[in-house]
Amino acid sequence: MRDVAVIGVGMTPWGELWEKSLRTIFVEPALLAIQDAGVDKVDSLIVGSMSSGLFIGQEHLASLLADYLGYGPIPAARVESACASGGLALKMGYLEVASGLSDVVLVGGVEKMTDVTGNEATFALGTAADQEYEGFHGITFPGLYALIARAHMEKYGTTRQQLAMVAVKNHLNGSKNPLAQYPFQITVEAVLNSVLVADPLRVLDCSPITDGAAAVILAPVEMAKKLKKPVVKITGIGHATDTIALSGRKDITWLESVYLAGQQAFKMAGRKPQDIQFVEVHDCFTIAEICVTEALGFVEKGKGGQAVERGLTSLTGKIPVNPSGGLKSKGHPVGATGVAQAVEVVKQLRGEAGDRQVKGARVGMAQNMGGSGGSCLVHIFERE
Amino acid sequence: MRDVAVIGVGMTPWGELWEKSLRTIFVEPALLAIQDAGVDKVDSLIVGSMSSGLFIGQEHLASLLADYLGYGPIPAARVESACASGGLALKMGYLEVASGLSDVVLVGGVEKMTDVTGNEATFALGTAADQEYEGFHGITFPGLYALIARAHMEKYGTTRQQLAMVAVKNHLNGSKNPLAQYPFQITVEAVLNSVLVADPLRVLDCSPITDGAAAVILAPVEMAKKLKKPVVKITGIGHATDTIALSGRKDITWLESVYLAGQQAFKMAGRKPQDIQFVEVHDCFTIAEICVTEALGFVEKGKGGQAVERGLTSLTGKIPVNPSGGLKSKGHPVGATGVAQAVEVVKQLRGEAGDRQVKGARVGMAQNMGGSGGSCLVHIFERE
Repeated sequence: MRDVAVIGVGMTPWGELWEKSLRTIFVEPALLAIQDAGVDKVDSLIVGSMSSGLFIGQEHLASLLADYLGYGPIPAARVESACASGGLALKMGYLEVASGLSDVVLVGGVEKMTDVTGNEATFALGTAADQEYEGFHGITFPGLYALIARAHMEKYGTTRQQLAMVAVKNHLNGSKNPLAQYPFQITVEAVLNSVLVADPLRVLDCSPITDGAAAVILAPVEMAKKLKKPVVKITGIGHATDTIALSGRKDITWLESVYLAGQQAFKMAGRKPQDIQFVEVHDCFTIAEICVTEALGFVEKGKGGQAVERGLTSLTGKIPVNPSGGLKSKGHPVGATGVAQAVEVVKQLRGEAGDRQVKGARVGMAQNMGGSGGSCLVHIFERE
Repeated sequence: MRDVAVIGVGMTPWGELWEKSLRTIFVEPALLAIQDAGVDKVDSLIVGSMSSGLFIGQEHLASLLADYLGYGPIPAARVESACASGGLALKMGYLEVASGLSDVVLVGGVEKMTDVTGNEATFALGTAADQEYEGFHGITFPGLYALIARAHMEKYGTTRQQLAMVAVKNHLNGSKNPLAQYPFQITVEAVLNSVLVADPLRVLDCSPITDGAAAVILAPVEMAKKLKKPVVKITGIGHATDTIALSGRKDITWLESVYLAGQQAFKMAGRKPQDIQFVEVHDCFTIAEICVTEALGFVEKGKGGQAVERGLTSLTGKIPVNPSGGLKSKGHPVGATGVAQAVEVVKQLRGEAGDRQVKGARVGMAQNMGGSGGSCLVHIFERE
């Protein structure tokens, strides 16, 4: 297996992009990534998208996008693992390059979520849960994560304020990200006074509905070394699943798929949690970030809330979490999120993250998950 | 890259399976494949499904199925390339084994299509076309293939009767396949008198709406050699795309993605069309089989209709096409089709195909495509 580097990244502003259709939303960052890499060919396209069928009535997405990019007849594959579709695309792209099947792979993620009504979007997102055992009974994702939050508060004494602090921190970071959907600061008070969605979660605990895409170009490290940019390698990958219904789990406050994927990635990279200098995590809800930092081993089990309160996960803390603003502030076009995390990590490792730069960053991580942790992808990136 | 073998296959009867949900439909052939392989572990699951979101309101499918199989926390990925999703799953599974990432990979394909109305199914299938440039204007797949058929008739003199003969041949083969949805013979007259769908195509020119799944187990050839079954290797893979809208093509009678994928597979396997002893092709409509046999080089351009009429593609002909009964008689649960083709090819190569056995079969091919040829996967299999 060959070592694999990210040689190009691309992202354009996220938000409610009424004036653009999915193909345009995808092609813009894809072309930026190609330009950033400075390559004149792409051997293969892998695109992550969760539910283009329900959101815009379009499947066969990878062929459509290869075609619209003008890159047909290259092989093109769409992969799906709910909100972890982007992370899955990254893994599959890595495999194509590592195995020698392709030299230059365009990995993208995209979702166009605002062409449907709110109810339809809620239904589409709900298809990441077990529809027969969860959705059928009326529960949607805010409800599932509210169950997790309530259990975490009960078991570990996590407070309502600590949940809010996750959102406040991520908005502070996101206020420094010009591509974020909501690039402004919020306060704990604003979170606590926002509309109740599913007790204890309020609307400012929830990531938004977003249109957006992101893209990276993968290539062998040997090729990356000939380019002018700092070489950023993918050194660790983890991929695990769990029951997709919460009812199947022993302890709903513990994200086993995140733990397992993290362990695999650490092992492959020969790294420990202490070696990671910053991490982009899947904060689809504030409680998710807390559980993820615990499962990845950055904080002790049950201490995720306290860690936020003590500033350990802030941009200048011991382990900055979500310097990009996370899903909460940057936005969450579900299939694109895992790829956008990689874009952020690479920008940080190259020292191109502007006001939100983590100083001296050489080793970063991205953690992307589907549903309430039914699937998880973890990647470790290192600057050579 | 390691050589890869198919060490297990599984399929259960296809049809309108009202009494079973998608997860049950999938797990049955998956367990048969595991049993057939005689393995006691699976390292990874890859599942092809075209539109489980629109058909049953369920995404995050690979995690759901790994979970329901009792195989979580193994990594699980769903891939989609419209009706070529199954073929794409096979390629991705091959890559996992060939690269050394996994030893034993379960590759499955599944679709549950009968839980929606006919109009909803037509819409879901239409998402394989370019929705903005084709679907929006009201055309669906029978219409797109009718355009191809009309052009082929005009350009090459292909007759209405020759189209019908494709269906008659495939039903004759399918009558020998106990797992087929429609395991009975039909006549040219029956086809010509069946309901008109999109002139010149009639309902008996069209593959049906089907519930079904299929599964294969992939492993390194070294492992396969230690088992008791004949060793069947995957020796060639091709994967290409084309414009997904017909309007983008120079000649709609020519399936460029099929040609390119075929060429890649032949090159990788070191084979020529003359070396292939039988082929499973994507006869979603009768005209499709004719165009595919031309694009793969089994017959001359424009001569696909005559080839059927002369019996060249019959079970005892020069190049038997669709010994399983094809999509027409066996059924077409879209995401499962590419995997079911592999199941048939392996059964033929092992000499386990019963009344439809191609005598002395050592080298077979499977060709699976998405939409009207916007994507195509070709695999060559050889018995060692």
